[in-house]
Amino acid sequence: MGKTLAEKIFSEHVGRDVKAGEIVLARVDIAMAQDGTGPLMINEFRELGFKEVKVPKAFLFIDHASPSPRKELSNSQKMMREFGKEMGVKVFDAGDGISHQILAEKYVKPGDLVAGADSHTCTAGGLGAFGTGMGSTDVAIIFGLGQNWFKVPETIKVVVNGKLQDGVYAKDIILEIARILGSDGATYKALEFHGSCIENMNVEDRLTISNMAVEVGAKAGLMPSDEKTREFLKKMGREEDFRELKADPDAVYETEIEIDATTLEPLVSLPHYVDNVRKVSEVEKEKIKIDQVFIGTCTNGRLQDLEIALKILEKHGKHPDVRLIVGPASRKVYMDALEKGIIKKFVELGAAVIPPGCGPCVGIHMGVLGDGERVLSTQNRNFKGRMGNPNAEIYLASPATAAATAVTGYITDPRRFI
Amino acid sequence: MGKTLAEKIFSEHVGRDVKAGEIVLARVDIAMAQDGTGPLMINEFRELGFKEVKVPKAFLFIDHASPSPRKELSNSQKMMREFGKEMGVKVFDAGDGISHQILAEKYVKPGDLVAGADSHTCTAGGLGAFGTGMGSTDVAIIFGLGQNWFKVPETIKVVVNGKLQDGVYAKDIILEIARILGSDGATYKALEFHGSCIENMNVEDRLTISNMAVEVGAKAGLMPSDEKTREFLKKMGREEDFRELKADPDAVYETEIEIDATTLEPLVSLPHYVDNVRKVSEVEKEKIKIDQVFIGTCTNGRLQDLEIALKILEKHGKHPDVRLIVGPASRKVYMDALEKGIIKKFVELGAAVIPPGCGPCVGIHMGVLGDGERVLSTQNRNFKGRMGNPNAEIYLASPATAAATAVTGYITDPRRFI
Repeated sequence: MGKTLAEKIFSEHVGRDVKAGEIVLARVDIAMAQDGTGPLMINEFRELGFKEVKVPKAFLFIDHASPSPRKELSNSQKMMREFGKEMGVKVFDAGDGISHQILAEKYVKPGDLVAGADSHTCTAGGLGAFGTGMGSTDVAIIFGLGQNWFKVPETIKVVVNGKLQDGVYAKDIILEIARILGSDGATYKALEFHGSCIENMNVEDRLTISNMAVEVGAKAGLMPSDEKTREFLKKMGREEDFRELKADPDAVYETEIEIDATTLEPLVSLPHYVDNVRKVSEVEKEKIKIDQVFIGTCTNGRLQDLEIALKILEKHGKHPDVRLIVGPASRKVYMDALEKGIIKKFVELGAAVIPPGCGPCVGIHMGVLGDGERVLSTQNRNFKGRMGNPNAEIYLASPATAAATAVTGYITDPRRFI
Repeated sequence: MGKTLAEKIFSEHVGRDVKAGEIVLARVDIAMAQDGTGPLMINEFRELGFKEVKVPKAFLFIDHASPSPRKELSNSQKMMREFGKEMGVKVFDAGDGISHQILAEKYVKPGDLVAGADSHTCTAGGLGAFGTGMGSTDVAIIFGLGQNWFKVPETIKVVVNGKLQDGVYAKDIILEIARILGSDGATYKALEFHGSCIENMNVEDRLTISNMAVEVGAKAGLMPSDEKTREFLKKMGREEDFRELKADPDAVYETEIEIDATTLEPLVSLPHYVDNVRKVSEVEKEKIKIDQVFIGTCTNGRLQDLEIALKILEKHGKHPDVRLIVGPASRKVYMDALEKGIIKKFVELGAAVIPPGCGPCVGIHMGVLGDGERVLSTQNRNFKGRMGNPNAEIYLASPATAAATAVTGYITDPRRFI
């Protein structure tokens, strides 16, 4: 019987053929924690009596609140740096960028098992790796033992055929998936992506989709590893990390959904749930005034996202009442954007460009909203209070929709500007 | 009897010849508040029953905590924006930069009387304007009436002759002045700068010195308006704002101090007082480990400051244990630095470049220290807790000393790298 991608990856990491539903002990290739979870993970690691880090690649990322906005967080970050030095674990610090983006750029290989104390570790699925978020204690176990137990998940096959129309992007596909499945539609399952639209999509877009797999409850959002993957790895200077990896044609899926990319429209998640998805063309009619637009995050803070947004803003200008915050996802993205003159143009347009990192997405700094204010963000979550103020509203959309909205000051269909 | 610069400026703003020691009602040219003081100022303005803003140029700056790190601050900022719209007062927002730098670039003219609800409003003295910090209520009065009462201050004549040696900068001159006068040595007085070193100095450097006049208690730090001033205003596209303005040769000064620039060494303020000044060459021997270096602020966040620091860092690299934060003082500085490739080089070197604004200087965000950590900053104040953690230590120095310190990881004389 054929294997799903999840079954293939777990089989390799367990050392025998495993099937969905089994509880297995698997070795982990990459483990990480960030500055929210890292201190908890480190405390557990020490309490459990571990003396050294056993996972092949271990990292700590100071990306959620960096440079630090509060002394309590600064103390946690200091403790992470000390642990990193003591254990020989690389620490990515202020200005380096977001964990998921850095992992994708530098470390994740197709077929890897990646465990992170951060729910969006599923981003690694964009490279054909099984990336999943776990609690701090479980990650501490992995730091100390190099392995942990997992339930091999059932897989939902997501087939996306057709060609996206101008103004419609990968973000709209994953919002459509959220609309179809709902926020708990894939709980403890894997998503596995198929279809011509996925095949023709670059890894940057695949990362956007995989990143939000957890928003429908999925443990992972797995993309095939193919020539597009090779291209991406080559661009990152590590083509040698490439290998082809696909599900077997006769793999068994729990269920299957199909999306026609050709008929897809720009979508937006309305407050306060990711699956509260509507068409931008409809929402536009309500002229929902937006105070702040944030283009960035592990979902949509890559070079092409900035380019797409800039193209619209450059031509049409920013509405004076909109605060525009731009956050490159990593130092590399920032450097590339600097090289291409993109940052300069955003600054000219009136944007505040923040250092690479999570920025205002997690509500700790760099763009917390006032009461009654509304933000349209390219991030992955719009839960009440997510961005630091429960009396504010968060709308989620693609960089194109974000840019179009920054032009007009209300939620706007980007196809108007294309 | 001749007049000091302060007496000249007040005479013009009162409408008759006035002398040091007099209490006068004077019209104000420029008034402003920032996001720390603005909400208080606005509340007072409303409570006092004012209906319109009467001062010719009024501004609100959201620079201290911007983009906002806390919802309470976001609400204050929202209130400032609403007041700005209602009253026709321009609001500078996230990413625009620091009030004092923006005022110097765009608005301050020689001979102006500038009142700001921010202690470093004295920065305007670099352009030959009487800039002074006042309480929020007093600034509300100025917003509402266009004038207020002032005591025309006595003036201390500060004569700086000679030529600064390589590695020694304007910042070292003002630190030397702090060492000589102490933190209350000029309380309610004006400083007025003279001498060949000042005459040969560009306005950027003069702004650095005037900025810290308040650190010796002075109400203002007045520079002559001369050809250097004309050059600066021309560069800012407003040569028409230039006029020559100097004290009369027979002006009467309360006292006079003299500094020989030629023998001056790089200086550093040790915790927790600005006037706790020592020679870097001496302090260097103690190998004081530095965790964070911050290059920015209204004191030293201008283009030439970034250039001076980069020159050293580019050649010698950043120490891996030092977190380097770079904050351009304004959108214009940021744009110029982007244009010249300076930002890209800082990012390559591992810096976190923050959006134009006060950054970590005021302890609200973007670089708060952990317990026991030490920062060397180009800012103007090192009071206990200033940067958000009373258990941290703040050292003040020039951009060159900051850069040299970022190279080695401990407080370092920049002359080693020149």
